[in-house]
This record gives sequence, C-alpha cells and structure tokens, in this order.
Amino acid sequence: MPTTSTTDVVLREMGLRDGLQSIATFMPTAAKCAWISAEAAAGVREIEVTSFVPPKLLPQFADAEAVVAHALTVPGLTVAALIPNLRGAERGLALGVHKLNYVLSVSETHNMSNVRRSTQESVDDFRRIVAAVRAAPNRPRLCAGLATSFGCTFEGAIDEDRVRRIAVELAEAGADELALADTVGYGDPAAVRRLFAAVKRDVGDLPVGAHFHDTRGVGVANVMAALEVGVRAFDASLAGLGGCPFAPGATGNIVMEDTAFLCETLGYDTGVDIAALAKIRAILAENLPGTQLLGNVAKSGLPKHFVPARLRARREAAE
Amino acid sequence: MPTTSTTDVVLREMGLRDGLQSIATFMPTAAKCAWISAEAAAGVREIEVTSFVPPKLLPQFADAEAVVAHALTVPGLTVAALIPNLRGAERGLALGVHKLNYVLSVSETHNMSNVRRSTQESVDDFRRIVAAVRAAPNRPRLCAGLATSFGCTFEGAIDEDRVRRIAVELAEAGADELALADTVGYGDPAAVRRLFAAVKRDVGDLPVGAHFHDTRGVGVANVMAALEVGVRAFDASLAGLGGCPFAPGATGNIVMEDTAFLCETLGYDTGVDIAALAKIRAILAENLPGTQLLGNVAKSGLPKHFVPARLRARREAAE
Repeated sequence: MPTTSTTDVVLREMGLRDGLQSIATFMPTAAKCAWISAEAAAGVREIEVTSFVPPKLLPQFADAEAVVAHALTVPGLTVAALIPNLRGAERGLALGVHKLNYVLSVSETHNMSNVRRSTQESVDDFRRIVAAVRAAPNRPRLCAGLATSFGCTFEGAIDEDRVRRIAVELAEAGADELALADTVGYGDPAAVRRLFAAVKRDVGDLPVGAHFHDTRGVGVANVMAALEVGVRAFDASLAGLGGCPFAPGATGNIVMEDTAFLCETLGYDTGVDIAALAKIRAILAENLPGTQLLGNVAKSGLPKHFVPARLRARREAAE
Repeated sequence: MPTTSTTDVVLREMGLRDGLQSIATFMPTAAKCAWISAEAAAGVREIEVTSFVPPKLLPQFADAEAVVAHALTVPGLTVAALIPNLRGAERGLALGVHKLNYVLSVSETHNMSNVRRSTQESVDDFRRIVAAVRAAPNRPRLCAGLATSFGCTFEGAIDEDRVRRIAVELAEAGADELALADTVGYGDPAAVRRLFAAVKRDVGDLPVGAHFHDTRGVGVANVMAALEVGVRAFDASLAGLGGCPFAPGATGNIVMEDTAFLCETLGYDTGVDIAALAKIRAILAENLPGTQLLGNVAKSGLPKHFVPARLRARREAAE
C-alpha cells in the first residue's frame, strides 16, 4: 500500500477510466501503462486505472488485469479501479488493487440507464460489496460515488435531501470515503458549496471528494467553491478526456493540468509537476488520434513567475 | 445615451475588438453589425465595437466609422471603442461613441511593443485625452485600462504596488472608471482577490472592472474571485474570441456565454439570455471560417432546471 500523501490536495487521474470509456479507439495496453507511469512520475498519487465492467460492454477495458498488474508495480501510487457491482469488486479484490470506486446514480433514470437497476438496489449491492471487502485479507479502501448529485440530463434537478440521505446510507453501510459527482456538468459553485458543506456535516470525518465535469465551462470555479468548504480530493483527467456514454451532452472531466494550476496558485500543494504533466499529453495525441485535447495551461505554459505552492511555503518559512 | 443598467453584473462584449484584432480574416461590416444587434437583443448592454487604431496597422478596423454608426442606432446599447492615443480619442469624439476605452500597459516592455512609448508617456497622453474629452460637447465616459496588471510574458511578475500607483494616477487624472486587465492570462484567483481589493480601496467609489483572458484555464475562477471582492463589470467575448498580437501565447478573452452562466448561477443578474447568446455564434462560424469557437455552455446547452437569477429572485420574493 502506498504511503500516506502529504499534499494539501489530492488530484486523482480519471482519464484511463472515465476518459477512455467514451472513446471508441482502443488504447494499446502499453500506452496505458506508459501514461500511468508518467503521471505517477509527475507526482499524481492516485489513478483510477481501469473499470471492472464486463469487457463485452466496454471493450476498452478488456485489458483491465494487465493494466492493474502494471500499475501495482509503480512505487507510491494508489491504484484505484471502478466497480459497477459485486462481480467487479471480486475482480478488484483478486488483483489486489488499493482502492475500489463504486458508483451509483442518485437519479433513478440515470442509474437505470447505467446499471439497469434502481438506486436502492445499488445501495443494497454496495452493502454486499462492503461485506466482501471486509472479508478480504488485504482490505482495499472502498469509495462510494454518487453520480448525478448536481442534476441529471434525464431528470433535471436532483433533490439535495435525497443526495444527503443516500450519502449517509452509503457512509453507514461502510464506505471509507464518498465522492459527489457532477456527472453531466450541471453543477455550479453555489450548489457545490451548499451540497458539499451539507454532506460533510452529515458524514462527519468521512472524506468527501469531488468529481466534476467541465460541461458548462465552470469546472474550475466549482473546484474553487469546493476548496472553500474543505474538499481536498478532486477527480480530473489529463487533457480533460472524458464524458459519459449514458449522459447525452456530457463532456470531459475537469482538466488535470488546469486544476493543478488553480490549486497551486491558491496555495494548495498538489505534489504535481504541471510542466511534466503537460508533456504526457503526447501519449494521448499519439494513441488517440482525432481526440480533442483540452486544457489551457498545457498549451500556453506556466506563467514566467510561477512558483509551486510547496516551494512558496518553504520560501516564506525561510524568510 | 443609453439608460442606466439595472443588472447586478455588467458583461461587456470585447469580441469585436479584442477578438477580431488577432484574426487576419476581415469580418464583413454587415456581419459585425448583425453581431452587435443580436448581442444587444440578447441583453448585452455594452459592446466595445471597434478600435480607433490606424487602419494600416490593423485593417480589421478599417470600417470603424461604419460599425460605430450602426451601433449608435441600437436602442439601449452603450457603444464603446478602444483608443490607443489622443488621435483615437478624437475619432471617437467626432462620432459620438458613449465610452472611450483607453489602454496602457503597466509593463514597460509590453507598452513599448504595443504603442512604442513608455508607460509614463502613456499616462501623460491620458491626461491630454481627459482634457479633450472634457472639452467635448457630448462628453463620453472614459475608461482607463491597465494591461498586464497580473503579469507579462516579457517581464514575468508585475509589481502590484506599481499597478496600484498607476491606477491611482489614472483615477486622479480623471478616468470615469478603471479596468484591470490580465492581458496574457497570468492571473490567478489569489492575485485577483488581492489586487482588485487593493485598487478598489485606493480609488474609492470609482468603478473598477475586470478584463480576463482564459489562457491558463482559470478564467471563470478569476471571475468568481473578483465577484467576491465586489467587482461588478467584466469584459468577455462571444465564443472566447480574442488574444493579443503583442503577447505571445495569449489566448482568447473569457467566454461570454460561460461567464454569464457562472454569474447567473451565483445569483447575479446579468440581464443576458444565454440561449439567445449561443445562437449568435452562427455569425462567427459563418464569417470567420477556421476560427475555433470556444466555450462549453453554448455547446452543451443550459441545465434542464436552470433559472436565470432575475427570475429566481422574483420567485423568492413572491414566496
């Protein structure tokens, strides 16, 4: 198991799962492995490396076992994988991943499209996963993600009390952490502040991370709002790769490089080398021709006078 | 002169000047006029419609007189134009524009590249412009913009005390309002909060607007930071059109549509109809082939449950 992070903010790479799942081109396993190694070397501490969905549903993840095996050799990296159900959890347990990310949708319609069952059935499934995880010899961390927490393209607004109720249910069921996901990019800074503050109050010490998409251009503003109410873990993807096959109009995750830049300029140490991160985009450009690589700081470069938060803190301490 | 705006936040369209100045393709005058009319109809109250630079330097603005003449016929619109010097001011005065936007660079190197004189010479020029404006029968408003207030690609960091000193000098010289411009997109929310708060303290009641570029992906976060310290006027451009011919790597202005979305979700009435705004992009697509149209909310559409701030306030008042 990797050592505990000492950064202020943990940025979690989602591109290998959330990014690739909406891209038809199969990314060669060697390229995925090179991407993982390079991002870890650039200081990214946690990567969702694959999804344990049946390969016949998403052929992109047919190499899940090989990718996980490689990722587990990368020093200091927390290796996470998405699990849609108990069967996925069992695959993850067998491989020894460090963290299982279970996701259900707060929106009934979205959950039905995604995993063909009701949200309550997905909560019940989570309880079975908790039991399986607890019985495992090398118990991984278990994160419960609440998709469509900020609205749903099918249902529109999602009742915030419902999000809170399900969050508490998942916490009480035994999640090690939660993630509130703005799956379709309906979130705005006001809603982000309100909902994260409420859920954090409800679940006490349990970490609550954020999963934002930049669908309506306010992704980094949502990050800033979440930081203000104490959120310290963010999902993002290199070059903003991503989307959701079941959410029409949903575009990519927030951009890892720009999110790191925002956090660092706000004084939060991410441990990430932004310039190194920008270079890794070449792996995507080479292996995913035709895919638009988003993100601005990678294209324009860091400001001439940019100083990472960690270095700034050290300088200030020395003064 | 148009009626006073009753919105919480004024969004000022910069695309016709800051956007077009870096685009080689001449946009037909009729298209510019259609763009102005459509944006005013979508609720945009103020548009910088052209630049009074010599047409031989920027042929894009050879039709400045015709564009201004059209804009002045649009009801309720504040017609602004950029002036680089006294000669530009005289052209604006002769035409009867409502507002003259003078710009100088806090960075000596940038000012030299831009207008081939020192910053102090530009301040002195501003005094002559104030005198000319005050002597005019139908006195327009005069805004003084401080380019590179958040850093410069040539010089790197810009001393914040220098920005404040020049801001005070321009205020005392007779500016009706100021604009702090992040010309090259070096700004971050922490710097934005700090500098706007300081300058606003320094200049008292004088309005201080913000001009941001999204060069490093944190444009909307900068808007949010500026709103927090009381800034209520923002420059933006439709589809993020823009750049600076003298600032290498600088990309477009912040996106008008996404900025409006951000402000509205935060509860600030902009008076802008975002869906109507999104449709105007067709004019750009048709007349500027090959130009990338940025911005996310125009592509993905508004959230199903979106309610403009003004309507929300009315509903809450009725409850």
